[in-house]
Amino acid sequence: MKMDANPLSNIRFVLDHTSHPGNIGSAARALKTMGLTRLYLVAPRRFPHAEADALACDARDVLLNTQVRTTLDEALAGCVFAAGLTARRRDLAHPCMDVREAARHLIALSAKQEVALVFGNEAYGLSNEELARCQLMVSIPTDAAYTSLNVASAVQIMAYELRMAVLAGSGVAPDTPELARLEDIEFFYRRLEETLIRIDFLDPNNPKRLMPRVRRMFARAQLEKEELSILMGMLKQINLHAKPKVD
Amino acid sequence: MKMDANPLSNIRFVLDHTSHPGNIGSAARALKTMGLTRLYLVAPRRFPHAEADALACDARDVLLNTQVRTTLDEALAGCVFAAGLTARRRDLAHPCMDVREAARHLIALSAKQEVALVFGNEAYGLSNEELARCQLMVSIPTDAAYTSLNVASAVQIMAYELRMAVLAGSGVAPDTPELARLEDIEFFYRRLEETLIRIDFLDPNNPKRLMPRVRRMFARAQLEKEELSILMGMLKQINLHAKPKVD
Repeated sequence: MKMDANPLSNIRFVLDHTSHPGNIGSAARALKTMGLTRLYLVAPRRFPHAEADALACDARDVLLNTQVRTTLDEALAGCVFAAGLTARRRDLAHPCMDVREAARHLIALSAKQEVALVFGNEAYGLSNEELARCQLMVSIPTDAAYTSLNVASAVQIMAYELRMAVLAGSGVAPDTPELARLEDIEFFYRRLEETLIRIDFLDPNNPKRLMPRVRRMFARAQLEKEELSILMGMLKQINLHAKPKVD
Repeated sequence: MKMDANPLSNIRFVLDHTSHPGNIGSAARALKTMGLTRLYLVAPRRFPHAEADALACDARDVLLNTQVRTTLDEALAGCVFAAGLTARRRDLAHPCMDVREAARHLIALSAKQEVALVFGNEAYGLSNEELARCQLMVSIPTDAAYTSLNVASAVQIMAYELRMAVLAGSGVAPDTPELARLEDIEFFYRRLEETLIRIDFLDPNNPKRLMPRVRRMFARAQLEKEELSILMGMLKQINLHAKPKVD
Protein backbone atom coordinates (compact mmCIF):
# COMPACT_ATOMS: atom_id res chain seq x y z
CA MET A 1 0.00 0.00 0.00
CA LYS A 2 1.40 3.33 -1.06
CA MET A 3 1.74 6.08 1.48
CA ASP A 4 1.94 9.46 -0.11
CA ALA A 5 1.27 12.74 1.61
CA ASN A 6 -0.04 14.35 -1.58
CA PRO A 7 -3.21 12.69 -2.87
CA LEU A 8 -2.72 14.32 -6.29
CA SER A 9 0.37 12.21 -6.88
CA ASN A 10 -1.70 9.01 -6.71
CA ILE A 11 -4.05 10.09 -9.48
CA ARG A 12 -3.38 9.16 -13.09
CA PHE A 13 -5.17 10.66 -16.05
CA VAL A 14 -5.71 8.12 -18.82
CA LEU A 15 -6.42 9.42 -22.33
CA ASP A 16 -7.86 6.57 -24.34
CA HIS A 17 -7.39 6.43 -28.13
CA THR A 18 -6.76 10.15 -28.43
CA SER A 19 -6.66 11.28 -32.07
CA HIS A 20 -5.12 14.74 -31.91
CA PRO A 21 -1.63 15.17 -30.44
CA GLY A 22 -2.46 18.80 -29.66
CA ASN A 23 -5.03 17.61 -27.14
CA ILE A 24 -2.38 15.48 -25.44
CA GLY A 25 -0.11 18.51 -25.09
CA SER A 26 -2.96 20.68 -23.81
CA ALA A 27 -3.91 17.98 -21.32
CA ALA A 28 -0.33 17.86 -20.02
CA ARG A 29 -0.36 21.61 -19.50
CA ALA A 30 -3.79 21.46 -17.83
CA LEU A 31 -2.53 18.81 -15.41
CA LYS A 32 0.65 20.59 -14.47
CA THR A 33 -1.11 23.90 -13.72
CA MET A 34 -3.19 22.01 -11.16
CA GLY A 35 -0.27 20.14 -9.59
CA LEU A 36 -0.94 16.82 -11.34
CA THR A 37 1.72 15.06 -13.35
CA ARG A 38 0.76 11.49 -14.20
CA LEU A 39 -0.47 11.07 -17.75
CA TYR A 40 -1.17 7.70 -19.42
CA LEU A 41 -2.07 7.21 -23.05
CA VAL A 42 -3.85 4.18 -24.45
CA ALA A 43 -3.06 3.64 -28.13
CA PRO A 44 -2.73 7.31 -29.13
CA ARG A 45 -2.93 7.85 -32.88
CA ARG A 46 0.22 10.02 -32.94
CA PHE A 47 2.60 10.36 -30.02
CA PRO A 48 5.21 11.72 -29.47
CA HIS A 49 4.43 14.62 -31.80
CA ALA A 50 5.63 18.19 -32.33
CA GLU A 51 2.13 19.56 -31.81
CA ALA A 52 1.85 17.90 -28.43
CA ASP A 53 5.17 19.48 -27.43
CA ALA A 54 4.07 22.91 -28.67
CA LEU A 55 0.80 22.93 -26.75
CA ALA A 56 2.33 21.51 -23.59
CA CYS A 57 4.45 24.71 -23.29
CA ASP A 58 6.40 24.35 -20.05
CA ALA A 59 4.69 21.07 -19.17
CA ARG A 60 6.92 19.08 -21.51
CA ASP A 61 8.27 17.23 -18.49
CA VAL A 62 4.80 15.74 -18.06
CA LEU A 63 4.92 14.52 -21.68
CA LEU A 64 8.38 13.06 -21.20
CA ASN A 65 7.09 11.01 -18.28
CA THR A 66 3.87 10.00 -20.04
CA GLN A 67 3.22 6.26 -20.06
CA VAL A 68 1.93 4.72 -23.28
CA ARG A 69 -0.03 1.47 -23.15
CA THR A 70 -1.78 -0.74 -25.68
CA THR A 71 -4.94 -1.43 -23.73
CA LEU A 72 -6.99 0.31 -21.09
CA ASP A 73 -6.49 -2.62 -18.73
CA GLU A 74 -2.73 -2.10 -18.89
CA ALA A 75 -3.14 1.60 -18.18
CA LEU A 76 -5.26 0.83 -15.12
CA ALA A 77 -2.85 -1.76 -13.66
CA GLY A 78 -2.11 -0.97 -10.02
CA CYS A 79 -5.20 1.16 -9.50
CA VAL A 80 -8.02 0.42 -7.08
CA PHE A 81 -10.55 2.73 -8.68
CA ALA A 82 -11.26 4.13 -12.13
CA ALA A 83 -13.74 6.82 -13.09
CA GLY A 84 -14.77 7.44 -16.69
CA LEU A 85 -15.74 10.84 -18.03
CA THR A 86 -18.77 10.75 -20.23
CA ALA A 87 -21.38 13.07 -21.68
CA ARG A 88 -23.63 10.40 -23.16
CA ARG A 89 -26.40 8.70 -21.26
CA ARG A 90 -25.97 4.95 -21.10
CA ASP A 91 -28.37 2.10 -21.34
CA LEU A 92 -27.26 0.41 -18.16
CA ALA A 93 -26.29 3.39 -16.11
CA HIS A 94 -23.24 3.08 -13.89
CA PRO A 95 -23.17 4.96 -10.62
CA CYS A 96 -22.75 8.57 -11.69
CA MET A 97 -21.48 11.71 -9.96
CA ASP A 98 -20.93 15.22 -11.16
CA VAL A 99 -17.33 16.31 -11.43
CA ARG A 100 -17.23 18.16 -8.09
CA GLU A 101 -18.64 15.29 -6.07
CA ALA A 102 -16.40 12.83 -7.93
CA ALA A 103 -13.31 14.93 -7.15
CA ARG A 104 -14.00 14.76 -3.41
CA HIS A 105 -14.53 11.02 -3.64
CA LEU A 106 -11.33 10.46 -5.60
CA ILE A 107 -9.21 12.64 -3.31
CA ALA A 108 -10.42 10.67 -0.32
CA LEU A 109 -9.47 7.40 -2.04
CA SER A 110 -6.15 8.61 -3.41
CA ALA A 111 -4.73 9.57 -0.04
CA LYS A 112 -3.25 6.09 0.13
CA GLN A 113 -4.15 4.24 -3.05
CA GLU A 114 -3.86 4.71 -6.79
CA VAL A 115 -6.86 5.86 -8.79
CA ALA A 116 -7.46 6.70 -12.44
CA LEU A 117 -9.59 9.02 -14.52
CA VAL A 118 -10.36 7.84 -18.03
CA PHE A 119 -11.10 10.12 -20.99
CA GLY A 120 -12.34 8.72 -24.30
CA ASN A 121 -11.62 9.53 -27.91
CA GLU A 122 -12.53 13.00 -29.21
CA ALA A 123 -15.22 11.76 -31.60
CA TYR A 124 -16.79 8.77 -29.94
CA GLY A 125 -15.88 9.00 -26.24
CA LEU A 126 -15.59 5.83 -24.20
CA SER A 127 -17.07 2.60 -25.51
CA ASN A 128 -19.42 0.65 -23.29
CA GLU A 129 -16.69 -1.96 -22.92
CA GLU A 130 -14.21 0.64 -21.73
CA LEU A 131 -16.74 2.17 -19.39
CA ALA A 132 -17.35 -1.27 -17.93
CA ARG A 133 -13.74 -1.08 -16.64
CA CYS A 134 -14.73 1.93 -14.57
CA GLN A 135 -16.51 1.94 -11.22
CA LEU A 136 -17.95 5.38 -11.65
CA MET A 137 -19.20 7.63 -14.41
CA VAL A 138 -18.30 11.30 -14.03
CA SER A 139 -20.38 13.89 -15.81
CA ILE A 140 -19.53 17.52 -16.46
CA PRO A 141 -22.80 19.47 -16.49
CA THR A 142 -22.71 20.89 -20.00
CA ASP A 143 -25.48 22.84 -21.66
CA ALA A 144 -28.05 20.60 -23.32
CA ALA A 145 -27.72 22.59 -26.55
CA TYR A 146 -24.01 21.76 -26.91
CA THR A 147 -22.49 18.99 -24.84
CA SER A 148 -19.29 18.51 -26.85
CA LEU A 149 -16.49 19.52 -24.49
CA ASN A 150 -12.98 19.32 -25.88
CA VAL A 151 -11.11 16.45 -24.21
CA ALA A 152 -8.34 18.71 -22.89
CA SER A 153 -11.01 21.04 -21.49
CA ALA A 154 -12.60 18.11 -19.70
CA VAL A 155 -9.16 17.23 -18.31
CA GLN A 156 -8.74 20.85 -17.20
CA ILE A 157 -12.07 20.96 -15.34
CA MET A 158 -11.48 17.59 -13.69
CA ALA A 159 -7.95 18.56 -12.64
CA TYR A 160 -9.19 21.89 -11.32
CA GLU A 161 -11.87 20.19 -9.20
CA LEU A 162 -9.33 17.73 -7.82
CA ARG A 163 -7.11 20.62 -6.80
CA MET A 164 -10.04 22.46 -5.22
CA ALA A 165 -10.94 19.30 -3.29
CA VAL A 166 -7.39 19.04 -1.95
CA LEU A 167 -7.35 22.72 -1.00
CA ALA A 168 -10.65 22.26 0.82
CA GLY A 169 -8.95 19.60 2.92
CA SER A 170 -11.46 16.95 1.97
CA GLY A 171 -8.60 14.54 1.36
CA VAL A 172 -8.49 13.60 5.03
CA ALA A 173 -10.09 10.19 5.08
CA PRO A 174 -8.06 8.02 7.45
CA ASP A 175 -10.52 5.15 7.51
CA THR A 176 -10.72 4.45 3.79
CA PRO A 177 -10.55 0.67 3.43
CA GLU A 178 -7.97 -0.91 1.19
CA LEU A 179 -9.74 -1.56 -2.09
CA ALA A 180 -9.15 -4.41 -4.51
CA ARG A 181 -6.96 -3.76 -7.53
CA LEU A 182 -8.77 -3.40 -10.81
CA GLU A 183 -6.72 -6.09 -12.55
CA ASP A 184 -7.63 -8.52 -9.79
CA ILE A 185 -11.29 -7.63 -10.21
CA GLU A 186 -10.99 -8.21 -13.97
CA PHE A 187 -9.44 -11.60 -13.30
CA PHE A 188 -12.36 -12.33 -11.01
CA TYR A 189 -14.88 -11.35 -13.74
CA ARG A 190 -13.20 -13.72 -16.21
CA ARG A 191 -13.21 -16.60 -13.73
CA LEU A 192 -16.79 -15.81 -12.80
CA GLU A 193 -17.92 -15.81 -16.43
CA GLU A 194 -16.21 -19.16 -17.09
CA THR A 195 -17.81 -20.52 -13.97
CA LEU A 196 -21.26 -19.26 -14.91
CA ILE A 197 -20.90 -20.91 -18.31
CA ARG A 198 -19.69 -24.09 -16.73
CA ILE A 199 -22.67 -24.26 -14.42
CA ASP A 200 -25.03 -23.48 -17.34
CA PHE A 201 -26.16 -20.20 -15.91
CA LEU A 202 -24.72 -18.21 -18.80
CA ASP A 203 -25.21 -19.29 -22.42
CA PRO A 204 -22.11 -18.07 -24.31
CA ASN A 205 -24.14 -18.08 -27.53
CA ASN A 206 -26.78 -15.87 -25.98
CA PRO A 207 -25.13 -13.98 -23.12
CA LYS A 208 -27.68 -11.16 -23.05
CA ARG A 209 -26.64 -8.40 -20.60
CA LEU A 210 -25.67 -10.67 -17.76
CA MET A 211 -21.99 -9.75 -17.32
CA PRO A 212 -22.57 -5.99 -17.66
CA ARG A 213 -25.18 -6.24 -14.93
CA VAL A 214 -22.80 -8.19 -12.72
CA ARG A 215 -20.12 -5.58 -13.31
CA ARG A 216 -22.48 -2.77 -12.44
CA MET A 217 -23.43 -4.43 -9.21
CA PHE A 218 -19.81 -4.94 -8.12
CA ALA A 219 -18.84 -1.48 -9.31
CA ARG A 220 -21.42 0.01 -6.95
CA ALA A 221 -20.05 -2.16 -4.18
CA GLN A 222 -16.47 -0.92 -4.62
CA LEU A 223 -14.90 -4.18 -3.66
CA GLU A 224 -12.38 -4.22 -0.89
CA LYS A 225 -9.30 -6.38 -1.15
CA GLU A 226 -10.49 -8.86 1.44
CA GLU A 227 -13.92 -9.09 -0.12
CA LEU A 228 -12.39 -10.00 -3.44
CA SER A 229 -10.34 -12.75 -1.77
CA ILE A 230 -13.56 -14.14 -0.37
CA LEU A 231 -15.27 -14.03 -3.77
CA MET A 232 -12.31 -15.76 -5.43
CA GLY A 233 -12.42 -18.40 -2.73
CA MET A 234 -16.09 -18.96 -3.45
CA LEU A 235 -15.46 -19.31 -7.17
CA LYS A 236 -12.74 -21.86 -6.53
CA GLN A 237 -15.08 -23.95 -4.46
CA ILE A 238 -17.89 -23.67 -7.00
CA ASN A 239 -15.53 -24.89 -9.71
CA LEU A 240 -14.20 -27.74 -7.58
CA HIS A 241 -17.72 -29.03 -7.10
CA ALA A 242 -19.06 -28.38 -10.59
CA LYS A 243 -19.59 -31.43 -12.76
CA PRO A 244 -17.20 -31.57 -15.73
CA LYS A 245 -19.06 -30.38 -18.82
CA VAL A 246 -20.05 -33.21 -21.21
CA ASP A 247 -20.70 -32.14 -24.78
CA MET B 1 -32.49 47.82 -16.54
CA LYS B 2 -32.41 44.54 -18.29
CA MET B 3 -34.65 41.76 -17.06
CA ASP B 4 -33.48 38.40 -18.14
CA ALA B 5 -34.45 35.11 -16.57
CA ASN B 6 -31.10 33.53 -17.42
CA PRO B 7 -28.18 35.20 -15.62
CA LEU B 8 -25.70 33.57 -18.02
CA SER B 9 -27.06 35.68 -20.87
CA ASN B 10 -25.99 38.88 -19.09
CA ILE B 11 -22.37 37.81 -18.83
CA ARG B 12 -19.84 38.73 -21.47
CA PHE B 13 -16.37 37.24 -21.76
CA VAL B 14 -13.83 39.78 -22.94
CA LEU B 15 -10.57 38.49 -24.44
CA ASP B 16 -8.10 41.34 -24.44
CA HIS B 17 -5.32 41.49 -27.06
CA THR B 18 -5.43 37.75 -27.73
CA SER B 19 -2.54 36.63 -29.95
CA HIS B 20 -3.58 33.17 -31.12
CA PRO B 21 -6.81 32.74 -33.07
CA GLY B 22 -6.96 29.11 -31.95
CA ASN B 23 -7.49 30.31 -28.40
CA ILE B 24 -10.42 32.43 -29.53
CA GLY B 25 -12.02 29.39 -31.16
CA SER B 26 -11.39 27.22 -28.11
CA ALA B 27 -12.85 29.92 -25.87
CA ALA B 28 -16.01 30.04 -28.01
CA ARG B 29 -16.41 26.29 -27.68
CA ALA B 30 -15.75 26.43 -23.93
CA LEU B 31 -18.44 29.09 -23.52
CA LYS B 32 -21.07 27.30 -25.54
CA THR B 33 -20.66 24.00 -23.70
CA MET B 34 -21.49 25.89 -20.50
CA GLY B 35 -24.48 27.77 -21.93
CA LEU B 36 -22.69 31.08 -22.42
CA THR B 37 -22.61 32.84 -25.77
CA ARG B 38 -21.35 36.40 -25.47
CA LEU B 39 -17.76 36.83 -26.57
CA TYR B 40 -16.02 40.20 -26.96
CA LEU B 41 -12.54 40.70 -28.37
CA VAL B 42 -10.37 43.72 -27.75
CA ALA B 43 -7.86 44.27 -30.56
CA PRO B 44 -7.24 40.60 -31.40
CA ARG B 45 -4.09 40.06 -33.44
CA ARG B 46 -5.88 37.90 -36.04
CA PHE B 47 -9.65 37.56 -36.24
CA PRO B 48 -11.63 36.19 -38.01
CA HIS B 49 -9.28 33.32 -38.76
CA ALA B 50 -9.55 29.74 -40.06
CA GLU B 51 -7.91 28.36 -36.92
CA ALA B 52 -10.49 30.02 -34.71
CA ASP B 53 -13.24 28.45 -36.81
CA ALA B 54 -11.59 25.02 -36.66
CA LEU B 55 -11.21 24.99 -32.88
CA ALA B 56 -14.68 26.39 -32.26
CA CYS B 57 -16.16 23.21 -33.79
CA ASP B 58 -19.92 23.58 -33.47
CA ALA B 59 -19.63 26.84 -31.57
CA ARG B 60 -19.06 28.82 -34.77
CA ASP B 61 -22.31 30.69 -34.08
CA VAL B 62 -20.60 32.17 -31.02
CA LEU B 63 -17.75 33.38 -33.23
CA LEU B 64 -20.19 34.85 -35.75
CA ASN B 65 -21.78 36.89 -32.97
CA THR B 66 -18.47 37.91 -31.42
CA GLN B 67 -18.07 41.64 -30.91
CA VAL B 68 -14.71 43.18 -31.75
CA ARG B 69 -13.67 46.43 -30.08
CA THR B 70 -10.60 48.64 -30.15
CA THR B 71 -10.33 49.35 -26.43
CA LEU B 72 -11.27 47.61 -23.22
CA ASP B 73 -13.49 50.53 -22.24
CA GLU B 74 -15.56 49.99 -25.38
CA ALA B 75 -15.87 46.30 -24.64
CA LEU B 76 -17.12 47.06 -21.13
CA ALA B 77 -19.72 49.63 -22.22
CA GLY B 78 -23.10 48.82 -20.69
CA CYS B 79 -21.69 46.71 -17.88
CA VAL B 80 -22.02 47.46 -14.18
CA PHE B 81 -19.22 45.16 -13.08
CA ALA B 82 -16.00 43.76 -14.51
CA ALA B 83 -13.76 41.07 -13.08
CA GLY B 84 -10.25 40.45 -14.37
CA LEU B 85 -8.59 37.04 -14.37
CA THR B 86 -5.03 37.16 -13.21
CA ALA B 87 -2.32 34.85 -11.96
CA ARG B 88 0.19 37.51 -11.02
CA ARG B 89 0.28 39.22 -7.66
CA ARG B 90 -0.14 42.96 -7.89
CA ASP B 91 1.46 45.80 -6.07
CA LEU B 92 -1.77 47.46 -5.08
CA ALA B 93 -3.99 44.49 -4.67
CA HIS B 94 -7.57 44.80 -5.85
CA PRO B 95 -10.25 42.94 -3.99
CA CYS B 96 -9.62 39.33 -4.98
CA MET B 97 -11.75 36.18 -4.99
CA ASP B 98 -11.10 32.66 -6.13
CA VAL B 99 -13.00 31.58 -9.21
CA ARG B 100 -15.75 29.73 -7.34
CA GLU B 101 -16.56 32.59 -5.00
CA ALA B 102 -16.37 35.05 -7.90
CA ALA B 103 -18.81 32.97 -9.95
CA ARG B 104 -21.43 33.13 -7.21
CA HIS B 105 -20.96 36.85 -6.89
CA LEU B 106 -21.23 37.43 -10.63
CA ILE B 107 -24.31 35.24 -11.01
CA ALA B 108 -26.05 37.20 -8.27
CA LEU B 109 -25.22 40.47 -10.05
CA SER B 110 -26.04 39.26 -13.53
CA ALA B 111 -29.61 38.30 -12.72
CA LYS B 112 -30.64 41.77 -13.84
CA GLN B 113 -27.52 43.61 -14.97
CA GLU B 114 -24.65 43.16 -17.39
CA VAL B 115 -21.28 42.02 -16.12
CA ALA B 116 -17.97 41.20 -17.78
CA LEU B 117 -15.03 38.88 -17.29
CA VAL B 118 -11.74 40.06 -18.73
CA PHE B 119 -8.89 37.78 -19.86
CA GLY B 120 -5.51 39.18 -20.81
CA ASN B 121 -2.99 38.39 -23.50
CA GLU B 122 -1.39 34.91 -23.54
CA ALA B 123 2.11 36.15 -22.76
CA TYR B 124 1.69 39.16 -20.51
CA GLY B 125 -1.84 38.93 -19.07
CA LEU B 126 -3.67 42.10 -18.10
CA SER B 127 -1.77 45.34 -17.67
CA ASN B 128 -2.20 47.29 -14.46
CA GLU B 129 -4.10 49.90 -16.45
CA GLU B 130 -6.51 47.27 -17.78
CA LEU B 131 -6.93 45.74 -14.36
CA ALA B 132 -7.75 49.18 -13.00
CA ARG B 133 -10.91 48.99 -15.15
CA CYS B 134 -12.01 45.96 -13.14
CA GLN B 135 -13.68 45.97 -9.74
CA LEU B 136 -12.49 42.51 -8.83
CA MET B 137 -9.51 40.24 -9.43
CA VAL B 138 -10.33 36.58 -9.95
CA SER B 139 -7.65 33.99 -9.31
CA ILE B 140 -7.63 30.37 -10.38
CA PRO B 141 -5.68 28.42 -7.76
CA THR B 142 -2.89 27.00 -9.88
CA ASP B 143 0.08 25.06 -8.62
CA ALA B 144 2.93 27.30 -7.51
CA ALA B 145 5.35 25.31 -9.67
CA TYR B 146 3.46 26.13 -12.88
CA THR B 147 0.90 28.90 -12.90
CA SER B 148 0.66 29.39 -16.67
CA LEU B 149 -2.90 28.39 -17.55
CA ASN B 150 -3.84 28.58 -21.21
CA VAL B 151 -6.29 31.46 -21.74
CA ALA B 152 -8.98 29.19 -23.21
CA SER B 153 -8.54 26.85 -20.23
CA ALA B 154 -9.06 29.78 -17.89
CA VAL B 155 -12.21 30.66 -19.86
CA GLN B 156 -13.35 27.04 -19.54
CA ILE B 157 -12.91 26.93 -15.77
CA MET B 158 -14.59 30.31 -15.26
CA ALA B 159 -17.51 29.33 -17.51
CA TYR B 160 -17.85 26.00 -15.73
CA GLU B 161 -17.99 27.69 -12.32
CA LEU B 162 -20.60 30.15 -13.56
CA ARG B 163 -22.73 27.27 -14.78
CA MET B 164 -22.29 25.41 -11.46
CA ALA B 165 -23.33 28.57 -9.59
CA VAL B 166 -26.49 28.83 -11.70
CA LEU B 167 -27.29 25.15 -11.19
CA ALA B 168 -26.83 25.61 -7.43
CA GLY B 169 -29.53 28.26 -7.56
CA SER B 170 -27.29 30.93 -6.13
CA GLY B 171 -28.54 33.29 -8.82
CA VAL B 172 -31.56 34.23 -6.75
CA ALA B 173 -30.70 37.65 -5.44
CA PRO B 174 -33.81 39.79 -5.63
CA ASP B 175 -32.40 42.66 -3.60
CA THR B 176 -29.27 43.37 -5.65
CA PRO B 177 -29.13 47.15 -6.02
CA GLU B 178 -28.82 48.72 -9.43
CA LEU B 179 -25.12 49.38 -9.92
CA ALA B 180 -23.52 52.22 -11.81
CA ARG B 181 -22.32 51.60 -15.35
CA LEU B 182 -18.61 51.26 -15.79
CA GLU B 183 -18.41 53.94 -18.47
CA ASP B 184 -20.14 56.36 -16.12
CA ILE B 185 -17.65 55.46 -13.40
CA GLU B 186 -14.76 56.05 -15.85
CA PHE B 187 -16.25 59.44 -16.69
CA PHE B 188 -16.37 60.16 -12.98
CA TYR B 189 -12.71 59.19 -12.55
CA ARG B 190 -11.69 61.55 -15.34
CA ARG B 191 -13.69 64.42 -13.87
CA LEU B 192 -12.35 63.62 -10.43
CA GLU B 193 -8.77 63.63 -11.66
CA GLU B 194 -9.23 66.99 -13.41
CA THR B 195 -10.83 68.33 -10.29
CA LEU B 196 -8.05 67.09 -8.04
CA ILE B 197 -5.52 68.75 -10.31
CA ARG B 198 -7.51 71.93 -10.37
CA ILE B 199 -7.65 72.06 -6.62
CA ASP B 200 -3.90 71.29 -6.42
CA PHE B 201 -4.38 68.03 -4.65
CA LEU B 202 -2.87 66.05 -7.49
CA ASP B 203 0.33 67.13 -9.20
CA PRO B 204 0.08 65.92 -12.82
CA ASN B 205 3.89 65.93 -13.03
CA ASN B 206 4.18 63.72 -9.99
CA PRO B 207 0.88 61.85 -9.68
CA LYS B 208 2.31 59.00 -7.59
CA ARG B 209 -0.25 56.25 -7.02
CA LEU B 210 -3.14 58.50 -6.15
CA MET B 211 -5.64 57.58 -8.88
CA PRO B 212 -5.00 53.83 -8.62
CA ARG B 213 -5.71 54.07 -4.92
CA VAL B 214 -8.89 56.01 -5.54
CA ARG B 215 -9.97 53.39 -8.07
CA ARG B 216 -9.30 50.58 -5.66
CA MET B 217 -11.37 52.23 -2.99
CA PHE B 218 -14.36 52.74 -5.28
CA ALA B 219 -13.95 49.29 -6.76
CA ARG B 220 -14.37 47.80 -3.30
CA ALA B 221 -17.41 49.96 -2.77
CA GLN B 222 -19.15 48.72 -5.94
CA LEU B 223 -20.83 51.99 -6.65
CA GLU B 224 -24.57 52.02 -7.10
CA LYS B 225 -26.16 54.18 -9.74
CA GLU B 226 -27.57 56.64 -7.26
CA GLU B 227 -24.31 56.89 -5.38
CA LEU B 228 -22.50 57.81 -8.57
CA SER B 229 -25.07 60.55 -9.24
CA ILE B 230 -24.34 61.93 -5.82
CA LEU B 231 -20.56 61.83 -6.41
CA MET B 232 -20.95 63.56 -9.77
CA GLY B 233 -23.08 66.20 -8.11
CA MET B 234 -20.35 66.75 -5.56
CA LEU B 235 -17.70 67.12 -8.24
CA LYS B 236 -19.83 69.66 -10.06
CA GLN B 237 -20.13 71.72 -6.93
CA ILE B 238 -16.44 71.46 -6.15
CA ASN B 239 -15.61 72.70 -9.64
CA LEU B 240 -18.10 75.53 -9.46
CA HIS B 241 -16.42 76.77 -6.35
CA ALA B 242 -12.82 76.16 -7.32
CA LYS B 243 -10.74 79.21 -8.13
CA PRO B 244 -9.74 79.37 -11.81
CA LYS B 245 -6.16 78.20 -12.06
CA VAL B 246 -3.64 80.98 -12.63
CA ASP B 247 -0.36 80.00 -14.23
